[in-house]
Amino acid sequence: MHAYRSHTCADLTAANVGETVRLSGWVHRVRDHGGVLFIDLRDHYGVTQVLCDGDSAAFAELEKVRSEWCIRIDGTVKARDPELVNPKLPTGEIEVYVRELDVLGKAEELPLMVFGDQEYPEETRLRYRYLDLRREAMQRNMTLRSDVVASMRRRMWESGFREYQTPIITASSPEGARDFLVPSRLHPGKFYALPQAPQQFKQLIMVSGFDKYFQIAPCFRDEDPRADRSPTDFYQLDLEMSFVTQQDVFDTIQPVLTGIFEEFGNGRKVDKVWPQISYKDAALWYGTDKPDLRNPIKMQDCSEHFRGSGFAIFAKLLEQEGTQIRAIPAPGGGSRKFCDRMNAFAQKEGLPGMGYIFWREGENGTEAAGPLAKNIGPERTEAIRLQLGLGKGDAAFFLGGKPKTFEKVAGKARDVIGEELGLTDKDRFAFAWIVDFPIYEKDDETGEIDFEHNPFSMPQGGMEALEGDPLEVKGYQYDLACNGYEIVSGAIRNHKPEIMLKAFELAGYGEDEVKSRFGALFNAFHYGAPPHGGCAAGIDRIVMLLADEANIREVMMFPMNQRAEDLMMQAPSDPTSDQLMDLGLRIIPQE
Amino acid sequence: MHAYRSHTCADLTAANVGETVRLSGWVHRVRDHGGVLFIDLRDHYGVTQVLCDGDSAAFAELEKVRSEWCIRIDGTVKARDPELVNPKLPTGEIEVYVRELDVLGKAEELPLMVFGDQEYPEETRLRYRYLDLRREAMQRNMTLRSDVVASMRRRMWESGFREYQTPIITASSPEGARDFLVPSRLHPGKFYALPQAPQQFKQLIMVSGFDKYFQIAPCFRDEDPRADRSPTDFYQLDLEMSFVTQQDVFDTIQPVLTGIFEEFGNGRKVDKVWPQISYKDAALWYGTDKPDLRNPIKMQDCSEHFRGSGFAIFAKLLEQEGTQIRAIPAPGGGSRKFCDRMNAFAQKEGLPGMGYIFWREGENGTEAAGPLAKNIGPERTEAIRLQLGLGKGDAAFFLGGKPKTFEKVAGKARDVIGEELGLTDKDRFAFAWIVDFPIYEKDDETGEIDFEHNPFSMPQGGMEALEGDPLEVKGYQYDLACNGYEIVSGAIRNHKPEIMLKAFELAGYGEDEVKSRFGALFNAFHYGAPPHGGCAAGIDRIVMLLADEANIREVMMFPMNQRAEDLMMQAPSDPTSDQLMDLGLRIIPQE
Repeated sequence: MHAYRSHTCADLTAANVGETVRLSGWVHRVRDHGGVLFIDLRDHYGVTQVLCDGDSAAFAELEKVRSEWCIRIDGTVKARDPELVNPKLPTGEIEVYVRELDVLGKAEELPLMVFGDQEYPEETRLRYRYLDLRREAMQRNMTLRSDVVASMRRRMWESGFREYQTPIITASSPEGARDFLVPSRLHPGKFYALPQAPQQFKQLIMVSGFDKYFQIAPCFRDEDPRADRSPTDFYQLDLEMSFVTQQDVFDTIQPVLTGIFEEFGNGRKVDKVWPQISYKDAALWYGTDKPDLRNPIKMQDCSEHFRGSGFAIFAKLLEQEGTQIRAIPAPGGGSRKFCDRMNAFAQKEGLPGMGYIFWREGENGTEAAGPLAKNIGPERTEAIRLQLGLGKGDAAFFLGGKPKTFEKVAGKARDVIGEELGLTDKDRFAFAWIVDFPIYEKDDETGEIDFEHNPFSMPQGGMEALEGDPLEVKGYQYDLACNGYEIVSGAIRNHKPEIMLKAFELAGYGEDEVKSRFGALFNAFHYGAPPHGGCAAGIDRIVMLLADEANIREVMMFPMNQRAEDLMMQAPSDPTSDQLMDLGLRIIPQE
Repeated sequence: MHAYRSHTCADLTAANVGETVRLSGWVHRVRDHGGVLFIDLRDHYGVTQVLCDGDSAAFAELEKVRSEWCIRIDGTVKARDPELVNPKLPTGEIEVYVRELDVLGKAEELPLMVFGDQEYPEETRLRYRYLDLRREAMQRNMTLRSDVVASMRRRMWESGFREYQTPIITASSPEGARDFLVPSRLHPGKFYALPQAPQQFKQLIMVSGFDKYFQIAPCFRDEDPRADRSPTDFYQLDLEMSFVTQQDVFDTIQPVLTGIFEEFGNGRKVDKVWPQISYKDAALWYGTDKPDLRNPIKMQDCSEHFRGSGFAIFAKLLEQEGTQIRAIPAPGGGSRKFCDRMNAFAQKEGLPGMGYIFWREGENGTEAAGPLAKNIGPERTEAIRLQLGLGKGDAAFFLGGKPKTFEKVAGKARDVIGEELGLTDKDRFAFAWIVDFPIYEKDDETGEIDFEHNPFSMPQGGMEALEGDPLEVKGYQYDLACNGYEIVSGAIRNHKPEIMLKAFELAGYGEDEVKSRFGALFNAFHYGAPPHGGCAAGIDRIVMLLADEANIREVMMFPMNQRAEDLMMQAPSDPTSDQLMDLGLRIIPQE
């Protein structure tokens, strides 16, 4: 017989009754039923009930085992009494009578129980991650992540892509975040950097003629911690293609992601139609560039109804340039109580509040209620109702000013309204491509023009477009939103050195700076660069959506804590003086 | 029609004749046949001949294109004249008559030609890697590497393993090489390290109950450069299993690697029988722990034939303790010329030389020749011949002393002899497991005992074995040699904290040091650790063997040069003073 097991803890069924078997695993739970010991023996695959009584030579030894001891047992498979069969367990028809026991690994008193649902502080979970990971939910999350990544790879290969590994110890990449640096020993005083993304490399791979690249790529950013982000690194499904348009990239990634969400979405509905929404419309309709389309609410511009109206606040506001009154329709939200609660929400978010109108059963049929309706009068109120397509029992909320000042809160209000009114379909994954991002933005304070997004995107209209108003230039640049999260970002790249120079010039970068900061790409583009583009999908985020987890640490095997410390491995730690000497570095004493 | 191509440059055949097509690619070669321009248009997939004459509106433009310009052409597919069909090319039956041209990316004068076989200095190739990679051999090597890795993954999944990613920014791992350090910004003065291997993590994954783990894992070692090693990082197929014996690990990895070598070995024979050779026997028979078994030569101990013989040098040598005379049989090497050349080889390698005997046709049948045979006389000479199984036309070489002093040269001599005599079958992959490695070795100078190999291996015989002579203790530790290279290394791990402490104590490490250096593992082993083991296969090395390349840079997309510099990306480079300030570091001025 094998040294450790003839079967896993998920294998045995009624078909094995009578067999002598060997199992290894962890003591999940021990119960002592008056001289009969029952142990749920657990391994990665399942649980098998084993038992022992005083007739067994192993009894005295088995009495000593405790939770999470790793043991091996030899025994005989027995059918359970019909009334004791556990239909929920694949091994629920049988139990194993223990004849021999070997303790493979004892356990000290546990800082964290594997069995049961008790919650533990995150510090405890991370310090004893090897125990935390034994819990059912963590085993499920980790295997889910592994399966998702494998499926992504399989789907990419089937789409004609090859995976190429790009360097991890390299030069600073210009993604805009902070680099992790790696001091060089052979060149003391000089530093490598860990890549923030393989962006430059994947573009160079296109210039090298490889046509289709993908990689499950680790990305490193020295960022200030957030719950939904690792403070050190994250993984993305990174892809790039030559000789493609934006639509080709969409047509490539959509079936891959649809497949992933269908395969691992646990039956939740996966939208097949992915609308393409311009950045501008997304802001207008949803107040965000990552809208949650499970929520059917679409905001609308209602400025005309308020211009010169009796509602002085809005009427005055509209006299200023660049202002707007935006309506959030709330079908089913037609009660004063609900409207007041939403108004309070907006105030909590830092706005003066949201005006509202709601429609109720009145003496002469449907009537509009709320102070706003009174101020603007029945005609304008009715025009608003018609524009928004609302009726009795519905409400609408109104925000005014320059869109930038209220849009974020409007977007949040839309989320809350959709949620509270039960409009948002929880059992669904809804996607939207956000397109036509502006290439540049103007700093409100300095008035300077800078890149709004990624500086490597091809401007729509090419060189010609760059000769007009920079703030009007849109890029072939896109994000994919799913249920309110950005899960993909990408672009058709600017592969023409002269357009690249011009694009940077507009953002205030001279030729020398382009050459020194992005020299490899800039040089490469002088040797027959193909048009190319691609995108990157955030793997941690996708797994979080699939696993329905809000914290990235629930879908990573060995995460850092929020202070970027690995409590289990004790990182970071003090270097030795020899190491510092080798690297030619000295630590500046901190206050 | 698609913006860039209706077909790739490998797609068109006689079936497409008459079609209007669009192709994009690089100008591989231009030929001007008196008013007719022929261009080999190349993309990742293949080459298509396109042509143009003065009748085409595109002619004037097409005359301007040069090698490696990236262009798009529209044209008509024409059948080639039967005598011009190129059967070597999938598109060899057709050519495309160009009607329209769009230059997608011009190229400046090339520092490196893509077409042809010209050799360039490595510095040029690395600086313009995006041109170098366009060359046919590099396209082949990179796709080979990608395909090998994908096949490994597929085979591991089919074997019941899941891939789990382990941290890249972490704590120092005790693999014995130098760590790359990463300074922490949130904790100035403290450092992370890049993992030399995921060894501790994969063991922790086993303690976490995951049963079967693998990973295509990047490993980072700050090593002094060598041609067959990257100075910064390499990739391994890393795997670990719980509840297994050494033989289980062998039975898992052998089919995976056999499959890989068969799939990508280009018809070379792949040995199915992988002998298990003890470390001790490997040294005796092959003079190395990574023997090339394509070479049938097996060395033998011939000491007894020389003890007290007339060959005084050897006879005297054997009076010292621990000495031996080792024979390298050389079937077919029976000429003075060959023997003298091998003797000279040994001298070049730093030994006094190799004694030899060779057998030739003499007056009375087979006779032994060479000074050694004369000194020891015919009886001993004949006994040697019989032991080695040699005859007329064969030779044997002899090395004497303490094995450590000559074994390495003996191993090299065995390689050269096998090669020169044509005994080594070049079209074959031959494997051998090297097992029973000693856990400890004694430093010849200090006399101190230290770990010979990996300190995490389980000693054969467990605790009991550690109570005897440390130098006699063997580990469940193994390497796989293929054609003279180590391609896999692994062990059954020591999962018992008390045995771990004892093992480290013998090597001079106290409990405190074990706790501080390997705390995570040591702690984890106190909470129900399963027996586990695994191995890691060197991917770069395997691809080098398959691609028949001697330099690791031929099988990496963007390698460093031997001074650990990335000439294309300009890494490493000077940090900014802000970056240093953030990290709390100061650079010590170099002399």
